[in-house]
Amino acid sequence: MSWLDEIRFDENGLVPAIAQDASSGKILMMAWMNRESLQLTAEKKQAVYWSRSRQKLWFKGEESGHIQNVVDIYFDCDEDVILLKVEQNGGIACHTGRESCFYRQLQDDEWVEVEQVIKDPKQIYSK
Amino acid sequence: MSWLDEIRFDENGLVPAIAQDASSGKILMMAWMNRESLQLTAEKKQAVYWSRSRQKLWFKGEESGHIQNVVDIYFDCDEDVILLKVEQNGGIACHTGRESCFYRQLQDDEWVEVEQVIKDPKQIYSK
Repeated sequence: MSWLDEIRFDENGLVPAIAQDASSGKILMMAWMNRESLQLTAEKKQAVYWSRSRQKLWFKGEESGHIQNVVDIYFDCDEDVILLKVEQNGGIACHTGRESCFYRQLQDDEWVEVEQVIKDPKQIYSK
Repeated sequence: MSWLDEIRFDENGLVPAIAQDASSGKILMMAWMNRESLQLTAEKKQAVYWSRSRQKLWFKGEESGHIQNVVDIYFDCDEDVILLKVEQNGGIACHTGRESCFYRQLQDDEWVEVEQVIKDPKQIYSK
């Protein structure tokens, strides 16, 4: 039996995968994985997700260069969530050019941006 | 417009919610929220999830006492994932009696338990 058989993928064959910075502990993003992307992630030691919008494998950083080198992989007690500890290339995980996708905080019933843009997305995706 | 209207709940009316220890940065668990549970979480400043298995509101800690006091709430660039920074009562988030639900690590193609049980679940749920 493969370690992959222990994962309980949902009705669409997907599980949520959280990427956390291995050094700082900061949560960078959450995306989705199917079985193939999780297997590739473990083999390559680089994060590979499943893009639900594009319905294809998403080799994180393929366009932006913001690859995630995978240090460790965990799964949870219900076997249906993956946690990756990663080294974030370029220090930017978010397509908005920020370190983390979780850059908006609830303050007095309003979402407030609390993280600065490190690099203009136009520069990231201009290739 | 309410801050809740900016969240993109999925076809089941749910979003994933990650709970992270506000002090240590450790990821404790991931569960699901519907609109009502998220609103209650913000109002009470205590984590309230939606139990998919029981199909009802899940006031985290209602049975175990392992309440999560919410320090901050974030959401991500796609508006479909919530991040809670919490203070974990009792230092135990997982129903297995461990601090974190992510207690199994992939090592040489096998899942290995890397976190100890702090309290026997029988003692936690004996009430």
